[in-house]
Amino acid sequence: MGEFDLIARYFTRPCRDAALGVGDDCALLGALPTGMQWAISTDMLVSDRHFWADVEPQALGHKALAVNLSDLAAMGARPRAFTLAMALPEINEPWLAGFAQGIWALADEHGCELIGGDTTRGPLNICITVFGEVPTLQALRRDAAQANDDVWVSGTLGDAAWALSLMQSSQPLPAEARSRLERPTPRIELGLRLRGLAHACMDLSDGLGGDLKHLLQASGVGAAIELSQLPTSPSLQILPAELRRNLALSGGDDYELLFTAAPNKREALQVLAADLGVPLTRIGTITRKPGLVFLDHGTPVPAEFGGYDHFSI
Amino acid sequence: MGEFDLIARYFTRPCRDAALGVGDDCALLGALPTGMQWAISTDMLVSDRHFWADVEPQALGHKALAVNLSDLAAMGARPRAFTLAMALPEINEPWLAGFAQGIWALADEHGCELIGGDTTRGPLNICITVFGEVPTLQALRRDAAQANDDVWVSGTLGDAAWALSLMQSSQPLPAEARSRLERPTPRIELGLRLRGLAHACMDLSDGLGGDLKHLLQASGVGAAIELSQLPTSPSLQILPAELRRNLALSGGDDYELLFTAAPNKREALQVLAADLGVPLTRIGTITRKPGLVFLDHGTPVPAEFGGYDHFSI
Repeated sequence: MGEFDLIARYFTRPCRDAALGVGDDCALLGALPTGMQWAISTDMLVSDRHFWADVEPQALGHKALAVNLSDLAAMGARPRAFTLAMALPEINEPWLAGFAQGIWALADEHGCELIGGDTTRGPLNICITVFGEVPTLQALRRDAAQANDDVWVSGTLGDAAWALSLMQSSQPLPAEARSRLERPTPRIELGLRLRGLAHACMDLSDGLGGDLKHLLQASGVGAAIELSQLPTSPSLQILPAELRRNLALSGGDDYELLFTAAPNKREALQVLAADLGVPLTRIGTITRKPGLVFLDHGTPVPAEFGGYDHFSI
Repeated sequence: MGEFDLIARYFTRPCRDAALGVGDDCALLGALPTGMQWAISTDMLVSDRHFWADVEPQALGHKALAVNLSDLAAMGARPRAFTLAMALPEINEPWLAGFAQGIWALADEHGCELIGGDTTRGPLNICITVFGEVPTLQALRRDAAQANDDVWVSGTLGDAAWALSLMQSSQPLPAEARSRLERPTPRIELGLRLRGLAHACMDLSDGLGGDLKHLLQASGVGAAIELSQLPTSPSLQILPAELRRNLALSGGDDYELLFTAAPNKREALQVLAADLGVPLTRIGTITRKPGLVFLDHGTPVPAEFGGYDHFSI
């Protein structure tokens, strides 16, 4: 099978919203409704860094798109389309069929159309660019946190990092833990509903401790975070407190939303959490003074939790 | 230097057209003027496949963007913005500075703004997604060739393939030949001016013989191509005729435009060629009957010239 057969067999479907999809030099995307902007994000996943080469291909297809959709969620944008570029070490049809199945299932769930791509031979690498729509001036940006805002996170933190450490030490891996690592859930609906409620928002991919610093820098503010409030799942609650906190603060791959909102939005946010069935937890406060302070039951504690940086380790 | 310093130092500039550029979860692109569509293309370049790891970084930066801009040219779209995702084996500051210089120079030449990206560690891989604007229904598609159209190509064919073969056999490489291989010129202005003149259009990246087949299949037509008319540069004209034709038909990396137009557009196209200083050569005719026939001074010759396929060799 050649490059063009591969594209035809696994990655071509009739156009839906796009005026022209896979197969020409470019895809064509029609005009957005008045008052809407495109939100665009690109993520590159590399073998042995973001995943192991032997990961189940359906899970990899899911994750490759999910991490990109998570960026749209973080902006409050509705997914519309994506492009897929891949370098493959070889043609392995069962692998490709599984990968395509994983990516299509998540794409269909969110009405996100594959409009173009590129395939080449090389060390396994997957680069997806996603396109979402968001009303002008309503996107949830990182630079919009305000002093006295509450700091919130969705879901639970550290599960993916815990699953990763179990795998790396060859310990048994519960299905739920594996799922958090390999099949993250992009918080699309939450992102859409946070428009008008949240000020700043970002997704957590490199660990809360590091990611939060980017949001604070962009907004020119600081934060005080209460470590005892960090939400963790039952499977992490049996771990020693220090390990649990470390996983919740420094573990990557959470793909939860971190956002800030005015204190008068607390009730609306709890109603939203119940409505979506997604826990929302208040973990701290934005401060006018720059810097990130950690508290343990109200007492400042020395803590330095760096986020994941692809070039600093 | 970490991932975030790297992005700040080499790949961040103030926003121009984009409502929000590098640094958030997504970039935001404002609405297009009424009656315009986005043309979108993505290309992935892999070390030792699309380029050698020791290529001059300025040239690689140029080429990585140029091959994407060439896709916009082929649709008749005007470049507006791009995203850049890279996997790097290490942080090499002089290399990054050179790469950035190459990419910015070409981006500035075409008013094309970097709006976002991703960097990670891994085998060298560059994935760019470009965004251009084109009036609705005026894009130059592959499926629009009509029976009796003339078949045209811009510039000269086979120069990049000849340069590649000289490099591979460690022969001296004239500067002009190296430039055709490493610093292709995307035919942006030509693509824009072909709107309303050409029917079908595509760019030549994998060799005329193979690329033309894709255009014919998409349009449901055939073509007769006169081999003696294939335009080649003076440096190829000293080669044996068979080698020259083989380079012109099967050599990749030309990044010239292949297009079809009604015979009554011949004069307008020659005026355009003179105006742009870009040779346009009529090399054959579109036929109602499917299939690709090669002629040598009017006599059919058996010839099978496959295009480059990343997985068939």
